[in-house]
Amino acid sequence: MLRMDVKELDRFLDEAFPQARTFGFEIDELDEEHIRLRLPVSKQHLRPGGTVNGPVLMSLADSATYMLVLARLGPVALAVTVSLNINFMRKPRPGVLLADARLLKLGKRIVVAEVRISGEDEPELYAHATVTYSLPPDR
Amino acid sequence: MLRMDVKELDRFLDEAFPQARTFGFEIDELDEEHIRLRLPVSKQHLRPGGTVNGPVLMSLADSATYMLVLARLGPVALAVTVSLNINFMRKPRPGVLLADARLLKLGKRIVVAEVRISGEDEPELYAHATVTYSLPPDR
Amino acid sequence: MLRMDVKELDRFLDEAFPQARTFGFEIDELDEEHIRLRLPVSKQHLRPGGTVNGPVLMSLADSATYMLVLARLGPVALAVTVSLNINFMRKPRPGVLLADARLLKLGKRIVVAEVRISGEDEPELYAHATVTYSLPPDR
Amino acid sequence: MLRMDVKELDRFLDEAFPQARTFGFEIDELDEEHIRLRLPVSKQHLRPGGTVNGPVLMSLADSATYMLVLARLGPVALAVTVSLNINFMRKPRPGVLLADARLLKLGKRIVVAEVRISGEDEPELYAHATVTYSLPPDR
Repeated sequence: MLRMDVKELDRFLDEAFPQARTFGFEIDELDEEHIRLRLPVSKQHLRPGGTVNGPVLMSLADSATYMLVLARLGPVALAVTVSLNINFMRKPRPGVLLADARLLKLGKRIVVAEVRISGEDEPELYAHATVTYSLPPDR
Repeated sequence: MLRMDVKELDRFLDEAFPQARTFGFEIDELDEEHIRLRLPVSKQHLRPGGTVNGPVLMSLADSATYMLVLARLGPVALAVTVSLNINFMRKPRPGVLLADARLLKLGKRIVVAEVRISGEDEPELYAHATVTYSLPPDR
Repeated sequence: MLRMDVKELDRFLDEAFPQARTFGFEIDELDEEHIRLRLPVSKQHLRPGGTVNGPVLMSLADSATYMLVLARLGPVALAVTVSLNINFMRKPRPGVLLADARLLKLGKRIVVAEVRISGEDEPELYAHATVTYSLPPDR
Repeated sequence: MLRMDVKELDRFLDEAFPQARTFGFEIDELDEEHIRLRLPVSKQHLRPGGTVNGPVLMSLADSATYMLVLARLGPVALAVTVSLNINFMRKPRPGVLLADARLLKLGKRIVVAEVRISGEDEPELYAHATVTYSLPPDR
């Protein structure tokens, strides 16, 4: 069951995380096990030479997981990232980045998700991350 | 394209890695992007209390990746594990473990795979790993 | 403060984890923030060609963390590995392996340690791991 | 041996990575095995509530490793992050962040570093990362 839909997540972001808005992603798809964020790459995400910055991909992986946690649990402000592991496989091409996060575990205290980052119309992955969140005990 | 099929991998294991045989896994499925190892859990894999040892799951993830590298590249004796990241999600139940490794990247020098470990007839994952191998430059 | 000293850890291992004994490590040093395990490499740890098996290093990193958790918290049978990340840097030489685990965090519910694996009389690291344990809520 | 000192790294950053400048870190210490970056936390790094954003810490870990690679190898523009693993241990307090990167391996093709992130006058770590870079074959 989803406790927040895309509109509610958007409103939450606008109010609580205006930086996320500046960063530039949008929620493209959402169901109980999966979320897709969409990030049109702009100048702020690039290294000279036109490569997308690694931290942009890490940030996107973290955000996708957080959005999915919120969608499932409601506005748990205190959910925090415990660990993040990311492998960078290919240099992203300019254009639109897609981050697909899927739940591997939604426990009482620990959430684990995997995130695949790819380009639009691009079959091969740019990066793969696993992200762990810790949930507050009393929510 | 596969350079080694299941029979050839089996023969390679018998000759070069008799310990793998003692460890007890079998190759259950193999195609170009995916391998499934099957490990019937026995006494040697258990902690007292009947829990499957964490290192058994790590070993299985590493082996699945290695078998898939061999299948794709032929008997590359010098392929070595560079890094392994594993998240343990659920306590495995006694029975048969399945490890499904899929290629995320097969580069000239780096191979990245993700491995999902589950039980037979068990929908939820026990563990998820990403494994990186380095390939020798001149093969 | 230590709740178990080396003798008590040894006794606990003998009783509860006879496999750990078969695996072959000994506790070499112990203080509040650090433990050193010592593993004389034997035939069971080797791949043909004389390389120490990657899973041997992973297992050693996991065990060192677990021993340090026990030393600090007492016999918490239900402490479980949540995640393990390991980088393999150099091929271990035959001889004695040392695993030095140090606490990065000892929280109420999460323990994080880093583990450095080296050889005796060997300045450079063979492997570096970070290991996360989860603690049961009511202990 | 260092191929670039702090001044040369600063000049390289100014020319090639003006974003790094916007991000705000400075090189505080540098020797052959170690670099310390210093980041005075400002509004751009915070989530509402005053928490430092996780991606800020990841970005800092990645940058510290990259600066150390440059210092040792000279301006290797094509060094790329292969993987990054980070554990978040404590909520950073507002003030100055320090990122201490140390080389675990400087190979021909792979560099591995560990990065400890703490606060100034703060004994306990906020985060611990291991970062792997791949080097171009012909440099």
